[in-house]
Amino acid sequence: VRLLNITVVGAGSWGTALAKLLSEKYSAVTLWARNPELVDDLTTTRENKIYLPGISLPQGLTFTSDIEKAVHWADVIFFVTPSHVMRDMARIVAPFVSGETLIVTAAKGLELGTYKRMSQILAEEFPGHSEKIAALSGPNHAEEVSLGYPAAAVIASASRSTAEQLQDILMTSRFRAYTNPDIIGVELGGALKNIIALCAGIVEGLGFGDNTKAALMTRGLAEIARLGIAMEAQVATFAGISGVGDLIVTCTSKHSRNRRAGLLIAAGQTAHDIQQGSKMVVEGIRSTQAAYELARRHNIEMPITEQAYAILYQNKNPREAVLELMTRGKTHELEEVVQQDNLWR
Amino acid sequence: VRLLNITVVGAGSWGTALAKLLSEKYSAVTLWARNPELVDDLTTTRENKIYLPGISLPQGLTFTSDIEKAVHWADVIFFVTPSHVMRDMARIVAPFVSGETLIVTAAKGLELGTYKRMSQILAEEFPGHSEKIAALSGPNHAEEVSLGYPAAAVIASASRSTAEQLQDILMTSRFRAYTNPDIIGVELGGALKNIIALCAGIVEGLGFGDNTKAALMTRGLAEIARLGIAMEAQVATFAGISGVGDLIVTCTSKHSRNRRAGLLIAAGQTAHDIQQGSKMVVEGIRSTQAAYELARRHNIEMPITEQAYAILYQNKNPREAVLELMTRGKTHELEEVVQQDNLWR
Repeated sequence: VRLLNITVVGAGSWGTALAKLLSEKYSAVTLWARNPELVDDLTTTRENKIYLPGISLPQGLTFTSDIEKAVHWADVIFFVTPSHVMRDMARIVAPFVSGETLIVTAAKGLELGTYKRMSQILAEEFPGHSEKIAALSGPNHAEEVSLGYPAAAVIASASRSTAEQLQDILMTSRFRAYTNPDIIGVELGGALKNIIALCAGIVEGLGFGDNTKAALMTRGLAEIARLGIAMEAQVATFAGISGVGDLIVTCTSKHSRNRRAGLLIAAGQTAHDIQQGSKMVVEGIRSTQAAYELARRHNIEMPITEQAYAILYQNKNPREAVLELMTRGKTHELEEVVQQDNLWR
Repeated sequence: VRLLNITVVGAGSWGTALAKLLSEKYSAVTLWARNPELVDDLTTTRENKIYLPGISLPQGLTFTSDIEKAVHWADVIFFVTPSHVMRDMARIVAPFVSGETLIVTAAKGLELGTYKRMSQILAEEFPGHSEKIAALSGPNHAEEVSLGYPAAAVIASASRSTAEQLQDILMTSRFRAYTNPDIIGVELGGALKNIIALCAGIVEGLGFGDNTKAALMTRGLAEIARLGIAMEAQVATFAGISGVGDLIVTCTSKHSRNRRAGLLIAAGQTAHDIQQGSKMVVEGIRSTQAAYELARRHNIEMPITEQAYAILYQNKNPREAVLELMTRGKTHELEEVVQQDNLWR
């Protein structure tokens, strides 16, 4: 077995957890952080006090803020940056990288304005790497993965060989990686689920029950899948780990920023208030606009996204929005997704 | 609009909630309960103190323990009995029912030994009614529906006309009914989700986190869908309201008996202890055996069901079972469900 050089770009909570996971399996893992002071602190204390407090990081893990040094020898690079800095980061990294390097995005979002997926950005910034690009997604709280709780993820790539190489690299007895050829569906699921989490928070905040929330999540997933199909994703991906799996965690976890933003909106705050008041990006607010525009572009009906857009960007009353969803025309459940003309007798 | 006679057979919590829902829309709704004393109490107090305490029932709702009187004039009969008494109940009702009556099952389970779905039992006991039979399913806590929280359900029938008639009957501004032609998928989802809820309780009880539970729920849904496809269900049904929607509520709700049974098993109790100690049926224990046998019959791989079976019926250590699930061979996510030979480039 040849020595593998693995680099994680981005020392937020998930980047740090991923570097820890890989460092327990490989001896040459490097975690790049933008801030040199953070790098000093990481090197000295072996703890990321800001983004992953309480987790002790392996001795073998290398930290650096020098991007050339971080990626120059890398066989695999994981980009774990916020989605809105992905393109800038890719441009900085690209000149130092050979054509054999595997390039993975672990960011969940779409580019502002263009609504491009992260792997599309990477394909543009790393021309000639198209067979080497993959996306990692799934219900993975950084802290739980770091504590060794069993978890599953999806590694998606249009190239089977790339997906399987990365599956081998990631798999441990506590972290299961499933391959999936449908990188479009995997990335869309990860980005758009935040809209539903935001709405789940609103529904909870309005005092509705488990039934309402489960109905919202299921119908939300159906409309995301509808948009996904129009964008050439596979419907089955949305029923998988990066679809429903990630949706469940994001809609039910106490840690979810999007869900918490929904609770605040139900309590009367506006999207503007929330974005002003928080240093963290609430991705669901941006994703709602992206999905709203994409639905129009592809001529897809997305009733939940439309109501979320009206609440966030047009000051619509949330309770009114929920009741409007409930009193829409009658619907047949399968006709929208199944490619069959006549399922009935 | 012709006057519609609607009868609900079974005055448990969901039967009572359904009768209340229908009685708010129709004037001739009858709720049948086996116990004459319960009927007296219902009639006097307008409250089902045992199964739906605190909910006041409409004045127009009629109660009876006389089955002939209950069903003789019925245009629609909802069977909301436990699954193990469905056949006996259907046999008692059948002689009094005309061929035009719509027959709906709202029970979630499979017949012991035969593993038949409830609608199959009804088709056998009501010969000549095959176009009039439907199944109602979904994430519907009786109490929440009674309180008027928005909820969604699926009404499935092989006959479009039957499904759409029942959709019209059930729809209110707070209760959304979606039709689905795939009655097989709808009934299997309702019955088999309890296995996953039981396992979700075990995983929680062992102290694992949200990631683990979401992975279990997603992979559990995938294996239920795999069995469903072999039994001629539509894969999309499992991603819908009666599939993932019901799964979410059952795996996360504090009220779920199956989830609670899983917590007890993680704490060291045996399936036998739990069944002895509880007056209520824990359906997931029976469903595990049914799914285990059906998987063998159809030659389908169901790793989670197999581990649940080993825990419940062969005293396997739950922690060992979880770790065995995590260290199985590598898997590709879509190949098992998508009917395409080559999704990869």
